[in-house]
Amino acid sequence: MGKIRLFIDHPLAAGQPVPLTDGQAHYLSSVMRQGAGNEIAVFNGRQGEWRARIAALGRKGGQVDPVAQARPQQDPPDLWLVFAPIKKARTDFIVEKAAELGAARIIPVQTDHTNAERIRQDRLQAHAVEAAEQCGGTFVPPVDDLQSLVRLLDGWDAGRRILWADEALVGAARTLAALPRGPWAVLIGPEGGWSEAERGRLRALPFVTPISLGPRILRADTAAVAALALWQSAAGDWGDAEAPQD
Amino acid sequence: MGKIRLFIDHPLAAGQPVPLTDGQAHYLSSVMRQGAGNEIAVFNGRQGEWRARIAALGRKGGQVDPVAQARPQQDPPDLWLVFAPIKKARTDFIVEKAAELGAARIIPVQTDHTNAERIRQDRLQAHAVEAAEQCGGTFVPPVDDLQSLVRLLDGWDAGRRILWADEALVGAARTLAALPRGPWAVLIGPEGGWSEAERGRLRALPFVTPISLGPRILRADTAAVAALALWQSAAGDWGDAEAPQD
Repeated sequence: MGKIRLFIDHPLAAGQPVPLTDGQAHYLSSVMRQGAGNEIAVFNGRQGEWRARIAALGRKGGQVDPVAQARPQQDPPDLWLVFAPIKKARTDFIVEKAAELGAARIIPVQTDHTNAERIRQDRLQAHAVEAAEQCGGTFVPPVDDLQSLVRLLDGWDAGRRILWADEALVGAARTLAALPRGPWAVLIGPEGGWSEAERGRLRALPFVTPISLGPRILRADTAAVAALALWQSAAGDWGDAEAPQD
Repeated sequence: MGKIRLFIDHPLAAGQPVPLTDGQAHYLSSVMRQGAGNEIAVFNGRQGEWRARIAALGRKGGQVDPVAQARPQQDPPDLWLVFAPIKKARTDFIVEKAAELGAARIIPVQTDHTNAERIRQDRLQAHAVEAAEQCGGTFVPPVDDLQSLVRLLDGWDAGRRILWADEALVGAARTLAALPRGPWAVLIGPEGGWSEAERGRLRALPFVTPISLGPRILRADTAAVAALALWQSAAGDWGDAEAPQD
């Protein structure tokens, strides 16, 4: 933490110079007061984290030289987040938190009660990148463009289970204790909740497991963070290592 | 949802008029376009949710008449959130989410690496009230003023366990499966993490259970939401009712 980490969409190899974008150069020079010779950490989402020396830095663009890999690539579990976009700030927040919590793919969907007509996919992707830079991760989840939930479910691979946050239910714990391993997606609805048509359709799908997030109505952003955390703890990579020594 | 809900810090009884604050009157008239005769929902954090008729409404103040109790009082489990304040927006967010997720008391603390010198307790309390109004809850968690973690722990009742988010650990799941019932507090550190002194002190306390929130570094606000959700699912009121019918 405190360490400067940059996501660079470019292959990383010792001694192979990597170009900086204008934005990255501005951030390093004007915001972080860095200069040629300083060392930062870079990652490209595929080859782990690398130590890299700033070789050139101007107001427009610059270049870093990867020195050596500092940490191996660590991919998150195979968990997708499928969510209905809400107000701008809270949608940004959901993407940021999903990246922090180790979602492998983020899919915004239009539901019957979704007010959002379109999203700024590029802006949401940038939030995912920034979250990965901040949280020390080496993976950046791709953010899909907005699509219809109906179409998404029509083409869904039944091998990927869906953990469906259904506000009509109560009683999450027992279900979560028994979550089978394998590919999953967490499905979070819009502020307006699910339509009866959607609820009926989702109930009928064999790979959908409804869960409750308790007796209080959660905002969509809270529900997304809570459901991702519950999944990670029950079936993800939060429980895989040694238990706490206390 | 969509229903207008107001927190009113006043006893509620059928036919006993209740005064509105200027802020509530402005919200009802100017923002929600309500007028005398309309019905809203009110709660005071102790007597459940009541249907109430707007008896008088002006730019300054007004009055509602409670008609009948619509829902009984529902208090959250005995879970406190103890957290180190961070940047303003994210601190507001933590309080909002803690209220949504059913924290019974919210205690901001100063830790060795906390940058915050003071907080606006009144503003944070207002966020907790707004969250309760929005999430359909009938309980509003009190928000304490900022205090030192050391002093808080010195006076701590050993009967209340502490679930301590220690970023140095990995492996939450096993611990959480075995959480004993009873009073708990979730303890979340600042962005800067825990000092070695704090870590040593917390490890030595018999009522402290360290947990991990996974291999990625979470922001303090994400950690607070994740830890509250995990506790609610493992030992709180998210698992008490009937299991999902799927």
